[in-house]
Amino acid sequence: MTIEIERKFLVDGDGWRDGVTGSRRIRQAYLSKGGAASVRIRLVDEREARLTVKAAGSVDGAALARAEFEYPVPFEHAQAMLDLRIGRIIEKTRYLVPAGNGRVWEVDVFDGDHEGLILAEIELDAADEHVVLPDWIGREVTDDPGYSNAVLAQVG
Amino acid sequence: MTIEIERKFLVDGDGWRDGVTGSRRIRQAYLSKGGAASVRIRLVDEREARLTVKAAGSVDGAALARAEFEYPVPFEHAQAMLDLRIGRIIEKTRYLVPAGNGRVWEVDVFDGDHEGLILAEIELDAADEHVVLPDWIGREVTDDPGYSNAVLAQVG
Repeated sequence: MTIEIERKFLVDGDGWRDGVTGSRRIRQAYLSKGGAASVRIRLVDEREARLTVKAAGSVDGAALARAEFEYPVPFEHAQAMLDLRIGRIIEKTRYLVPAGNGRVWEVDVFDGDHEGLILAEIELDAADEHVVLPDWIGREVTDDPGYSNAVLAQVG
Repeated sequence: MTIEIERKFLVDGDGWRDGVTGSRRIRQAYLSKGGAASVRIRLVDEREARLTVKAAGSVDGAALARAEFEYPVPFEHAQAMLDLRIGRIIEKTRYLVPAGNGRVWEVDVFDGDHEGLILAEIELDAADEHVVLPDWIGREVTDDPGYSNAVLAQVG
């Protein structure tokens, strides 16, 4: 089990594109959500896949921290499990932008039903860790459920 | 992915006990059910554990066949995931009784909330495979949702 601590922001403009060091195509969908845990299947670059169980609530009261269990699964399994999803398939390109402090911004450019939406996430060791925010970082939406992947899988 | 074909029966009397060749303690619970797939965590004998995604419907119209994806997970993960369950933990002892035709009867003796319930299952290669039914095999409940593990996890 890992405890995932992350902050999430809207993105303003294209300033982040100069810093990109890598990218991957992601397709993901939920087998379950709404209970104490969400269960997600994610396919990356048409070659690797993971099954993730994520606690719905916070861990020990830390709002950003959620228990997460992740397992690699055969790609063909993941493709078949997409058919067992509830809601939509989320499709996005994830760009990696080094954050300078050893951290990495993950800038997700959505397409398909969410064309136009761009979100930036950063994973942290502690909820109160100091983060330098580049000028292309917009409003924080960490606590806004409307920008969670589980809700994005529901609405366009 | 495997396609699981199994038949399930009530058990009459103790005749099966003479044929037992092994047993294991099972605790299991659901992280999700009610969608297109159920997600189950199972802990066996306090040392191994598996995460299973099972399609809710039938595969290609065969009523007994359901797509199933199963992955071993660390035992401590499984213990932590029990806290993310919906419904009850099902506790049972599974006794293995050779079926004579290379098959094995799994006789599940439930305890806790389902004390007194005994079910026998047999896994088959084809839905129409001939099965010799010992005299301790009672009414077939393969198609009775009231005896599915998912429903047993709900009611006592």
